[in-house]
Amino acid sequence: MEIRIIPIKGVPVPVKAGDDVAKLLCEAIDRQGISLQDGDVLVVTHKVISKSKGLIYRLSEVKPSKEAVMLSRSLGKPPELVEVILRETARIIRTRNGLIICETRHGFVCANAGVDVSNVDGGLSATTLPPDPDEEARRIRRFFREARGVDIAVVISDTHGRPFRRGQVNVAIGIAGIKPLRDRRGDRDLFGYELKATAIAVADEIASAAELVIGQAGEGIPAAIVRGLKYNVDLTSSIKDLVMSPEEDLFR
Amino acid sequence: MEIRIIPIKGVPVPVKAGDDVAKLLCEAIDRQGISLQDGDVLVVTHKVISKSKGLIYRLSEVKPSKEAVMLSRSLGKPPELVEVILRETARIIRTRNGLIICETRHGFVCANAGVDVSNVDGGLSATTLPPDPDEEARRIRRFFREARGVDIAVVISDTHGRPFRRGQVNVAIGIAGIKPLRDRRGDRDLFGYELKATAIAVADEIASAAELVIGQAGEGIPAAIVRGLKYNVDLTSSIKDLVMSPEEDLFR
Repeated sequence: MEIRIIPIKGVPVPVKAGDDVAKLLCEAIDRQGISLQDGDVLVVTHKVISKSKGLIYRLSEVKPSKEAVMLSRSLGKPPELVEVILRETARIIRTRNGLIICETRHGFVCANAGVDVSNVDGGLSATTLPPDPDEEARRIRRFFREARGVDIAVVISDTHGRPFRRGQVNVAIGIAGIKPLRDRRGDRDLFGYELKATAIAVADEIASAAELVIGQAGEGIPAAIVRGLKYNVDLTSSIKDLVMSPEEDLFR
Repeated sequence: MEIRIIPIKGVPVPVKAGDDVAKLLCEAIDRQGISLQDGDVLVVTHKVISKSKGLIYRLSEVKPSKEAVMLSRSLGKPPELVEVILRETARIIRTRNGLIICETRHGFVCANAGVDVSNVDGGLSATTLPPDPDEEARRIRRFFREARGVDIAVVISDTHGRPFRRGQVNVAIGIAGIKPLRDRRGDRDLFGYELKATAIAVADEIASAAELVIGQAGEGIPAAIVRGLKYNVDLTSSIKDLVMSPEEDLFR
């Protein structure tokens, strides 16, 4: 019943466009002298996947739209960065005090539409989320099935802020081989109370658990193995199962 | 660097009013043949603490106020339950479709002000949150320091829903011996972006990680040990550090 969270070290960073993240992870796991087992959950931070897909934009080469220029003034961010954010945005949910909370094209609600800024070669660059994180998770799952003959689940993660509580937590933005919600068969269900709230977002909890070993090292540890967890295997689940529609959301 | 999440089994349930939860957990850990070590984080679900403090109300004995009766009609919940919820509520944030999202007296924003319903002796009973979960965490921390000579951190947890994403996750509602936020020293800080968002709510991630072993067993596993985590020890931190004020919240 014990769960182990094992950091994956030794992935050569920074990951470059064209790198095969699944292969890099597999080699790093080999070098660590461990191997994936059936039922393991592999959590991978999206950033290495985004970089491997070349989803990096040098801000000096981005041409901001009029809307981006106007918005950049109130946000106090470079217009080129705001332009990248807007391209990732389906809907702006809130702006205030330099913060822009967006609904991404995937339906995630998060700051800056998931765009990260970093300093590459002395200039500012922006990294965007993979367009289809479920597909990235499935690809990694397939890789380990074919290369190592193991059936694992994969969770692609990102850190998001949230209303009501300070700080960010790691959440799932893509999944493969796991049902992301677990039904709660507790007292509450017996009486029909809170029927809408009787599921645990286990994929998010897995992402948060993995962050405990991933987080402090930055890109040095881009992934972790969660071992010993009993979860519902499901090959057809999608991260969409965790995404609340605007209609069911009380806070949009 | 590996983290282990160890479930604590064998706590005699249901916990009764007057029970010493710290002592029950200590005895259960002893029976499991393990012992707490310096630096362990002990995560305890609030429900056993609430029960030990007698924070259970038989709904048949609760007299609902006029406000509770009125609200119960639109919510489709028993007026006695709504009365218990309102007593725990500092401010109603949203009501819709049978859901009531409240700001509790602690400042937490959650469904039903944290009130759980269960069936005790054939009637409906409601359990409320401990009035001072930090103090409960400190008490458990002191107990293990005095009884076993170990310096641990303690996190009291509850499962909360959240906007934007389906399902509940376990979060921290009381802490002792640990700084609940960890500063992120990553790319973002270098450029001053998202200064408000550059901390990880590590106490919440710990609670979520623990839920992975606690959750499925209901009251059978009311606590878990998180071992191997590097965290910032802090004896003066409070869960208030994780509670966003209405003023800084974009969604209240």
